Amino acid sequence: MTDMWVNETLYPFWGQRFGVTRELARTKSDFQDIAIFESEFHGRVMMLDGIVQITEGDEFVYQEMLTHVPLLAHGAARSVLIIGAGDGGVLRRVLMHKGVERAVMVEIDGEVIRLAKEFLPKIAGEAWDDPRAEVIVGDGIDYVKKAPDASFDVIIVDSTDPIGVGEVLFTDDFYANCARILTARGLVVNQCGVPFMQADELRETSARRRKFFPHVTAYVAAVPTYVGGFMTLGWAGKDPELTRLPAATIRARAEAAGILGTTEYWSPEMHAASFVLPPYIAKHLPG
Amino acid sequence: MTDMWVNETLYPFWGQRFGVTRELARTKSDFQDIAIFESEFHGRVMMLDGIVQITEGDEFVYQEMLTHVPLLAHGAARSVLIIGAGDGGVLRRVLMHKGVERAVMVEIDGEVIRLAKEFLPKIAGEAWDDPRAEVIVGDGIDYVKKAPDASFDVIIVDSTDPIGVGEVLFTDDFYANCARILTARGLVVNQCGVPFMQADELRETSARRRKFFPHVTAYVAAVPTYVGGFMTLGWAGKDPELTRLPAATIRARAEAAGILGTTEYWSPEMHAASFVLPPYIAKHLPG
Repeated sequence: MTDMWVNETLYPFWGQRFGVTRELARTKSDFQDIAIFESEFHGRVMMLDGIVQITEGDEFVYQEMLTHVPLLAHGAARSVLIIGAGDGGVLRRVLMHKGVERAVMVEIDGEVIRLAKEFLPKIAGEAWDDPRAEVIVGDGIDYVKKAPDASFDVIIVDSTDPIGVGEVLFTDDFYANCARILTARGLVVNQCGVPFMQADELRETSARRRKFFPHVTAYVAAVPTYVGGFMTLGWAGKDPELTRLPAATIRARAEAAGILGTTEYWSPEMHAASFVLPPYIAKHLPG
Repeated sequence: MTDMWVNETLYPFWGQRFGVTRELARTKSDFQDIAIFESEFHGRVMMLDGIVQITEGDEFVYQEMLTHVPLLAHGAARSVLIIGAGDGGVLRRVLMHKGVERAVMVEIDGEVIRLAKEFLPKIAGEAWDDPRAEVIVGDGIDYVKKAPDASFDVIIVDSTDPIGVGEVLFTDDFYANCARILTARGLVVNQCGVPFMQADELRETSARRRKFFPHVTAYVAAVPTYVGGFMTLGWAGKDPELTRLPAATIRARAEAAGILGTTEYWSPEMHAASFVLPPYIAKHLPG
């Protein structure tokens, strides 16, 4: 047994705890409390306001599913907008796709980027220096408001839960602008929490986005440190066919994109299977 | 925030904790420490040797997947053997299947059954009194040794992890007898742990069973309180076609069996999707 424990405080009555070998950073930015520590099992862990955002050990699950699923379902994404994801992990995965010409990342908290570069350098790898990447420290809400019509093929929102700093990323205004700046077959994905614990998050977000997108659904990923069974990744798009593609189509696209064989959780078959929802989750989606 | 917490002690460096309103039972049986408490979120929780076995809140995930998947994949199971599962939840699900004529349950620890009947009565419901049920307090190893050849269609092993009292359920001798007492298309399923944390369990169990069964694989379920991402349910059978059935076939069988519409996690589509394994899990199975 270890001596030093960090308890996640996401839920008042249940949670996970990590055995910790040392604290690497602890600071209060303009937006949130940021802590990074070295854990006994999961490698380095970053928490924001006491909630686990990423661990080196299992980041592959969330990042692969949040990135490869929308990009390969779209099939021809050249311009991608990432909101949040200050650790750089989504940016790295987006840039793995050969067809991507431009990846704009807008993170509100520059301190998260700075600390991730210093203490979690493996998460983003060389992505920060890729000439296709444009990293903006700024407000995602403002960015989507000002961005030109039809300027992105895919928008990936990797935010905190809809409390605190992430809350505005779950508003009508935000989704209306997302719909406007997306191209004809465009789509937006975002994390919608763990429905076993936070079903409201999936239900309310899905209902809200239904106002601006003809096709709203979700897909699932079992992320070890987002405890509580499946996490849902929300999907709002203009073309319902994109979520019904067979694994063989996705496999061919992944091969062309340079993704096949690089992943530990995602696969063409997992991609297709992730849109199958258990009844206890499906019931929260708009009919 | 609650005052009283129970920490699971499955892993030395990581784990979950439950806010507790009151302790209902705490005893040491001949085999293990048993504790049942009322939690703030998950209803009642039973722990054996400090490890969560079942909670009222999420038991549906594990029980549905451990029962309905093998029974509906088999398609004509009349005689079912359950080893372990002292809470009665698997027994209840098995008896929901109209075609089942006989369900034998062998649990080594009578104290688990007694306490489950007293403090977790919803888990088994009326199953204990079903005339098709034969509940034996005894040793599963002995039972499979003495059972006649070809006497069961499906064997469900709902054991603790392969440490302590559950260890013998993961031996050559046990699997050899399972193969012998199963009918021609018979199969055995068992819980194989959470591979993100316990990959050895899946790897070693699968390799061992490969000696006695022509078809060894696994399927996954995201169980909220078996933390660490997907849990694997190991599959060893005589007919590889059983794990490749399309959802439409499973749906027709579920309708005939009286299962359709009764479930919260299982569905015909989830059934089929659960055999798709992420690469980080698939790599531990024998080729």
